[in-house]
Amino acid sequence: MLFRNARIATMAGDEAYGLIARGALLVEGGRIAWVGQETDLPGGYDGPQEDLGGRLVTPALIDCHTHIVHGGNRAGEFEMRLNGASYEEVARAGGGIVSTVRATREASEEALLAGALRFADALIAEGVAVIEVKSGYGLDIATELKMLRVARAIEGARPVRVKTSFLGAHAVPVEYKNRSKAYVSEICLPALEAAHDAGLVDAVDGFCEGIAFSPEEIAVVFDRARELGLPVKLHAEQLSHLGGTQLAARYGALSADHVEYADDADARALARASSVAVILPGAFYTLRETQAPPIDIFRRHGVPMALATDCNPGSSPMASLLLAMNMGCTLFRMTPEEALAGVTRYAARALGLGDCGVIAAGRRADLALWDVEQPAELAYRIGYNPLWRRIFGGEG
Amino acid sequence: MLFRNARIATMAGDEAYGLIARGALLVEGGRIAWVGQETDLPGGYDGPQEDLGGRLVTPALIDCHTHIVHGGNRAGEFEMRLNGASYEEVARAGGGIVSTVRATREASEEALLAGALRFADALIAEGVAVIEVKSGYGLDIATELKMLRVARAIEGARPVRVKTSFLGAHAVPVEYKNRSKAYVSEICLPALEAAHDAGLVDAVDGFCEGIAFSPEEIAVVFDRARELGLPVKLHAEQLSHLGGTQLAARYGALSADHVEYADDADARALARASSVAVILPGAFYTLRETQAPPIDIFRRHGVPMALATDCNPGSSPMASLLLAMNMGCTLFRMTPEEALAGVTRYAARALGLGDCGVIAAGRRADLALWDVEQPAELAYRIGYNPLWRRIFGGEG
Ligand SMILES: [Zn+2]
Ligand SMILES: [Zn+2]
Repeated sequence: MLFRNARIATMAGDEAYGLIARGALLVEGGRIAWVGQETDLPGGYDGPQEDLGGRLVTPALIDCHTHIVHGGNRAGEFEMRLNGASYEEVARAGGGIVSTVRATREASEEALLAGALRFADALIAEGVAVIEVKSGYGLDIATELKMLRVARAIEGARPVRVKTSFLGAHAVPVEYKNRSKAYVSEICLPALEAAHDAGLVDAVDGFCEGIAFSPEEIAVVFDRARELGLPVKLHAEQLSHLGGTQLAARYGALSADHVEYADDADARALARASSVAVILPGAFYTLRETQAPPIDIFRRHGVPMALATDCNPGSSPMASLLLAMNMGCTLFRMTPEEALAGVTRYAARALGLGDCGVIAAGRRADLALWDVEQPAELAYRIGYNPLWRRIFGGEG
Repeated sequence: MLFRNARIATMAGDEAYGLIARGALLVEGGRIAWVGQETDLPGGYDGPQEDLGGRLVTPALIDCHTHIVHGGNRAGEFEMRLNGASYEEVARAGGGIVSTVRATREASEEALLAGALRFADALIAEGVAVIEVKSGYGLDIATELKMLRVARAIEGARPVRVKTSFLGAHAVPVEYKNRSKAYVSEICLPALEAAHDAGLVDAVDGFCEGIAFSPEEIAVVFDRARELGLPVKLHAEQLSHLGGTQLAARYGALSADHVEYADDADARALARASSVAVILPGAFYTLRETQAPPIDIFRRHGVPMALATDCNPGSSPMASLLLAMNMGCTLFRMTPEEALAGVTRYAARALGLGDCGVIAAGRRADLALWDVEQPAELAYRIGYNPLWRRIFGGEG
């Protein structure tokens, strides 16, 4: 199929957005066979073609950080807090991550899949073609594996690719209270090995924070990941500066995520390791944080920045990647071009994907076609979806 | 039609949300004929019925403050600023409200309608049944009337009700620079009269601010509104404290909108006048304001609070009323129940509508049916639309 009369934001090359003002794009066998100015189109093609009426074409979007597989929701806790309950009262009423762990353990795979598909569908409707999905609400071996099986099942149920991250080191479950080291050796590592044996793990993640795991504990998990030949990524420097970012960089991590408290040395380490900083404004917004991630420092050091929803029931019940783009600009002063690169080119990199994220010959034909006049409109609008059509592996 | 097995948030009565846990609802001739507990259902009905499977039913939503009729968009300006341009540079490049006025004057009615329908459709997809639409980007007689005709035309194009507000006193056009008084007498008042003669005006609005019109100038417009028998409302106390709220209250305004800088005396005046405070978090968020509206003070004085999108191309390019609810809670600490009342019961009141906004016998059967477990979920989620079905005047 040949698409003509399109403005194409390739997200590659030297122009802003890699823009081709009057472009054409040839798709063959699910891949991009040729892209360029319409006037440069090689002769000889006589297959079907479509005039896109000047619409904007971008790479399909990629949500590189989500927790969409989970049981229950935390609307009750949200309401309690707004009605003036203290954190203690919420905890006494069974709130917090504990409630999500309980609900996830209790839920059937069918129920977890149905829940996750609501969010997958919302993302697909915004032109998303790849969703990263983490475990981490099981915190026991069986439930961590169950979550990852459900994540994989999303691919069978919808036209979307899923990349899984094993997040056994997400929180210390109540049964291991004050015994986080024992949790890592007795649950987290065996769960990782079992999940890897079952082919369920694309990357290994952790949460390095005072309320979760120390750098030393995360290092134990990362060592095992390395032995298994799995790439790592890390929730780091979200609420305090513990050194997780530099730890992640030492392991050549795909990404360090949140990174509100990262500093100049952290940025240098990420740049040297070619790790992506994944910016998550939904959690910043929901938690009403005041420490914004150091976008200027990342820019200065050439750290690639991705943007994601962090879709989760506690700190970021957000299912719109377009809204994450707007929040990245409005709250953190990213540019619209950085925001779009953050959900395409650099989101692919945060997942170790080399076959998508830009529009170039040889890449997958994962495309988003938009009813907008200019690429900046994607980040400018709030709670509005201008997607006209999504093409996934050449189909759609 | 009889709907059974529903949780019904009537937004009337003493319970939280006016909730009926296992309710039934009889719709006849586009109106609600009966609502109550399913066990109290009067006998003798043998028409069609539907089991809602325990789904949540609320009044259809109402967006009581929008500017969805306008030409152009301001994505370029959004991008310039994020790329570091000063306000002066943006102005020199033709940005600001001036650019929207120019684009609106130049646009055909068809183009304006097509533009507005994008946002109307997004709102309808969230269960909205009434949209308020303002003029105010014409600032000349012909264009103000054109905008209001387009607003009315939305009703013919979509199953939704539109309430229009004449907002001639929105900004001083360049041709009247430093002559705001002359603008009011030469353009604004004649435009209001012509629009009223044409049956295009449901209420009269203004923007009382240092960058727009003084309380004295607004009073001139409100006096004319009173002579014409039209209710008034006002953009007041958004960026500074000029006294617009008390002015509005003196005219018995339907609402005072924005009201970030309102104080105790303003709240008392609104309560006495039974005026609604319309809270607009989208503009607060976009402009990165730090002065939140005094929700606690409004609560203390019993001022009814509505929530709206303020959908406009400059300070709030937001087309999601559910997101406005979430922002009302997250940014301003409104409760989820206040947020839902703000887009139903009190949004109706802000428009002077007595036939909708709550679920009660005799009201219009404008209903929203949601795939959620509890009403708080509507405000809790971010960028996610759980609408299952909308019923408009009994249809749908
Ligand atoms: Zn996360
Ligand atoms: Zn407004």
